[in-house]
Formats: sequence, C-alpha cells, structure tokens
Amino acid sequence: MLVDAVLKGDRLALARLLTQVENNTEDGRAALSRIFPRTGNAHLIGVTGAPGTGKSTLVNQLALRFRSENQRVAIVAVDPSSPFTGGAVLGDRVRMKDLGADPGVFIRSMASRGALGGLARATTGVVQVFDAANYQIVLIETVGAGQGEVDVARLAHTTLVVEAPGFGDDIQAIKAGILEIADILVINKADRPGVESTEKALRSALDFAHPDERDFAHHGKLLDREPPARPAEQHWRTPIQRTVATDGTGIPELAASIRKHADYLRSGGNWAGREQARLVSELAAHIDELLLDRFHAGLPQGRYNEVVQQVVQRQISPGDAARKLVDDGNPGEKARNQRGRAK
Amino acid sequence: MLVDAVLKGDRLALARLLTQVENNTEDGRAALSRIFPRTGNAHLIGVTGAPGTGKSTLVNQLALRFRSENQRVAIVAVDPSSPFTGGAVLGDRVRMKDLGADPGVFIRSMASRGALGGLARATTGVVQVFDAANYQIVLIETVGAGQGEVDVARLAHTTLVVEAPGFGDDIQAIKAGILEIADILVINKADRPGVESTEKALRSALDFAHPDERDFAHHGKLLDREPPARPAEQHWRTPIQRTVATDGTGIPELAASIRKHADYLRSGGNWAGREQARLVSELAAHIDELLLDRFHAGLPQGRYNEVVQQVVQRQISPGDAARKLVDDGNPGEKARNQRGRAK
Repeated sequence: MLVDAVLKGDRLALARLLTQVENNTEDGRAALSRIFPRTGNAHLIGVTGAPGTGKSTLVNQLALRFRSENQRVAIVAVDPSSPFTGGAVLGDRVRMKDLGADPGVFIRSMASRGALGGLARATTGVVQVFDAANYQIVLIETVGAGQGEVDVARLAHTTLVVEAPGFGDDIQAIKAGILEIADILVINKADRPGVESTEKALRSALDFAHPDERDFAHHGKLLDREPPARPAEQHWRTPIQRTVATDGTGIPELAASIRKHADYLRSGGNWAGREQARLVSELAAHIDELLLDRFHAGLPQGRYNEVVQQVVQRQISPGDAARKLVDDGNPGEKARNQRGRAK
Repeated sequence: MLVDAVLKGDRLALARLLTQVENNTEDGRAALSRIFPRTGNAHLIGVTGAPGTGKSTLVNQLALRFRSENQRVAIVAVDPSSPFTGGAVLGDRVRMKDLGADPGVFIRSMASRGALGGLARATTGVVQVFDAANYQIVLIETVGAGQGEVDVARLAHTTLVVEAPGFGDDIQAIKAGILEIADILVINKADRPGVESTEKALRSALDFAHPDERDFAHHGKLLDREPPARPAEQHWRTPIQRTVATDGTGIPELAASIRKHADYLRSGGNWAGREQARLVSELAAHIDELLLDRFHAGLPQGRYNEVVQQVVQRQISPGDAARKLVDDGNPGEKARNQRGRAK
C-alpha cells in the first residue's frame, strides 16, 4: 500500500501520496486517517513576508543548514495568489539546483485552485504526510498575501516573518497583523543600506505590540468559536535576526534561534497548547469544508442559481435566501429548529 | 415599528436597528428581510490601507465633500483587529468634532467580537440598513489587516487603497493583493518627501498588475464555488490621486474620481455584475454562518470538546473527527450520503 511505501522512505510513493492528499481523494483521506497517529514529531516552521524580501533563498539556506545538522527537511511552498496572478511557482528551479539532489530534502509547491479553504486543508494534509514520513523539519513558505500569512501562523510551531531594508522607519511599513504572528523577525538582505533604521523601526513596533496578546492573536483569531483553554505561555521575546541569504551570512544564528524557540515551547513554553490550537483550527476547517460540501451536494440541480437570481432581483434578502437554501437541504433540521423555537 | 421609523429618518431608531443587526437578533434579521428590496441605491465606497496613512482623516474629508454636494453620507468604520489589540475605535472623537453635528451624516464603528465571519455579516447588514435609509454614500473604512481589506473589496462598488510616502521605491512595499483590489489609489500625506518615488513605484506596480485580471481578483477569489457569469468590464485604468487630508488638498479631485468610477460602472462598466458578485458572496457568507450555527446547535453538550480531546491525543485525525461530528449532527444526511455512495 502507498502509505507503507511512504513510511519506508519511498520518494516516488511520497510524491504520489501528496498528490492524493492535495486532490482530497478518498485514498488521500484514508491515508491521512492512517498516518495521523504517527504525526506530531516534526518542527513546523512557517516563513512569510512580502515579495522581494528573499524568502525563498532564505528557506533554501535554512534547509541546507538543517541538513548539515543531519535533519531531514521538507519544504512546502504555498502560493495562495496563483489562481489569478498565474505567477511562477516560488523559484522552484533555483531550489532544485541547491537542494534537488539531496535525498534528505523533499520540496513540494502548492498553488490554490481558487478556494482558500481548500488550500489550507491541503497544506495541512501535506504537512502531516511529511511529519509522518519522518521529516523532522518542515519549512512552510507562503507568498505574503494576508490570508496566507495567517494560515501559516496557524500551521506552524515557529513563525518567521521576513523583512528587508528599504522601508525607512515609517510605521506604515509595519503591518500590525504581521508582527503579531512573528516568533522570529528576520531582516534579510541585511547588507543593504537602511538596515539600521529597519531594525530600529521593527524593534519599536515589537515593543508596541504586547507580547502577551500576541500569542492569542497567533492562534486565537482563527478559532471562531472555541479557543481552547490552555496555560499562558512564558514570555518569549521575539528576536530580530539579520541575514544575507545569498551568501549565508547569519543563517547559523537564525537556525540556532529557531531551535531555541522550539526548546522554549517544549520546556514550559506551551508546545502542547500550540499543538492543540493548531489541531482545533484544523478540525474547524475540515468541518467548514464538509458542511459546505454536503450542503451543495444536497441541493437540487439549479436550485442555488435560481435563488441567487431571486436575490439579485431583490425579491429575497441574502439572509432569507441562505435560510431557505439551508432548510431545503436539511428538512429534518428545519423541523428540529422549529420545534426548538416552539418550546 | 422600528423599520418604519428608520425609513422616516429617525436617527435614534436607526441606531437601535443597527445594534439589532450587529447582534444578529431575530428582530434585526426580520428588519433586514423587510428593507432588502429598498437597497441597491447607495454608492458603497471602501477605504483601506495600512495604519498611519491617514485613512480616517481622509474619510472625514470625503464625507464633508459629499455633504457639500448634498448627499447623505454614512461612515462604517470596521476594525477586525480590535478583539486582540483592544485599540481605540478609529479616531471616533476626531470624527464627531468634524461631522457629529450634521444630521446628514451617520457614523457607525464596528469591532469584531472574535469572529471574522460574523463581522463581515454584520457589516453587510449595517451597510444595507444605511442604503435603505437613503444614505446615498456609504464609506466603509477598515484598518489595514489582510482579511479586512478583502472584505471591503467584496462589499464596495469602489475601493480606495490609501498609501503614504515613505516606502521608497522598493517593490516589497507594494503588496500584490492590495493593488488588485484598488479601483483608485490614493497617496495621502502627499506634502511629505518621497511622494514622487512612491507614485512612481505604485504606477509601475499597477502596470504590472493586469487590469483585466484585477476584477476577477476583486470578487472572484471570494466566491469559492460559483463565480457568476457576467460580461467583461470595460477597461478602467486605476488612477493615482494625491491628497493632503489634513488641509483638504486633493479632496475635490478625489471625490470627482470616485464619481467617475461610479459613472463608469453604471454606463457599461458592469455595475450590475459587481452587485451580483457582492450579493452572491454575501449569500455564501450567510450560508457558511448558518451551517456552522446549526451544526454547533445540533451537537450534544460537550461532544465537540470530547472529540477535540481525541484529536489532541491523536486517537483520531482532524478529518475523521470532522466527518464524525458532522454525521452526528445530521444522521439523515449521513444515511443519504451513504445511499448516494451505494448507487
């Protein structure tokens, strides 16, 4: 079976399983169910930041560094924007040159197929496959679109936010949401002019962002409903690391900083809490997707578009239309709700 | 009844109705159903951009300008980040000084209560109330968090993205996602040094973003499932407007540009198509929320947390757990799906 081959280290089987997971096939889902008990060992490292900061090169360098420490490394490159920009897939060719020949490295690029929710689900699954397949380090890189950043934060144990000099020291350059998800800030291209003022601006912005609230932001805002109860994390002071990824400057220090964050989380810094938050939000995403799938599957052909037309002609409000459609799909549910109301 | 008072112009009734809509009460939902046929007249203008660009002052100035043209103006200030930053509500006090005494202006601040979906739903409802209550201009302002920007784009006919000098001309300053939602780019604080290079950078980034794809990005990426078929829009070339909101420089020109965009959309530029896309994504949000509400309401007390614990202990995968929970809540649905599979 495919899963067995994957667990034995068969790269071709791994590639095939990843495709099944991405496509959400029945086999893919069955495989995820089977491997899940074997997950939870990998250190998941999210890397995000605006285009042009050199994220991909940085990720490659980190991969090389972790390889030199004899860790097996997977790279998941996620590009949520690709359905409409049609952009290149995150410098894959450069990647293959640096890392492609190394059997301890596996690289997977993922592009959205129009559905953000689907991409998050697929990424989660792909990460779990790598985790079960004994990749100790999983680097998850996204292009810097808003939703992608947040999704990475949700997936990762340790989130790196990559900046580069050139912003000046203007506060507007520092997006509130980005700092809140950063466990480590990286100033890449640190040989460029302006690095001092960039670091200064980032540091003062960090001081401004309350570290105790940051961790809530990190996971809490994705949990619409039930943020899990968990002990407060001890204080982690987000470090700022300078790197020049193109020549490797600062990479050992950055890798050490990442390791330190993992140690911090494991030794009382609430690794378990983050795992739980991660899994709860993953569960919520699955529930979302499943409810929507079943809803659409349960609707008679053409019914959805019919109601859309009624809304567009302003015969029925979107809220009423939604209730009508949902009741159509779940007649038992409707009766139950009405009984509930009559009580 | 409250709705009648609102439609007659009673401001106190309006404030009360807005609260009901925000809180998603039964009365609020009934009111939305009733007023929906009266909506569709307002020009909905989204204003987004990073903190520090002077958005709020700009919105105030635009409101004053539209008032001088005898339009009734509503301002909806949305702050998706407020559950965890606890920040001030978007300069309300400054606002009240400029505009508070004018009976042709109504200002409403909205903060997330932890659920992004809920905020989008509530904002949509609030905007519809203003529309029905004969506010011809509705300015919807968000703080520059990623999701908020996208939500504004989904809500508005015309989206303004506000920048300010100080970025330098580095491409990294220009987030791809932001340019794609902009119908008009505003460089506020245009009396500051660096305005030339900011404009130059924005212009070349605009040339890079294909305008024909932009409109798909504008609405398409939110429509996970069924992007409505609609005629292609004629070409709109995103203008760059310089303003100094603090002294009113450039405001008449910006207001004219906004008007021009509305005219463009109405005269063949696919106003109807945007309306439809807006309504479809609103419908989808309602369906989402409803499905989740019913799902949670249908679960036995404690069941959700029980399954979460099984996931955390890695006894069951998140995907399997989701299927289990969804089947629990919809036994009829499960049977139907199994029948479907058996066919």
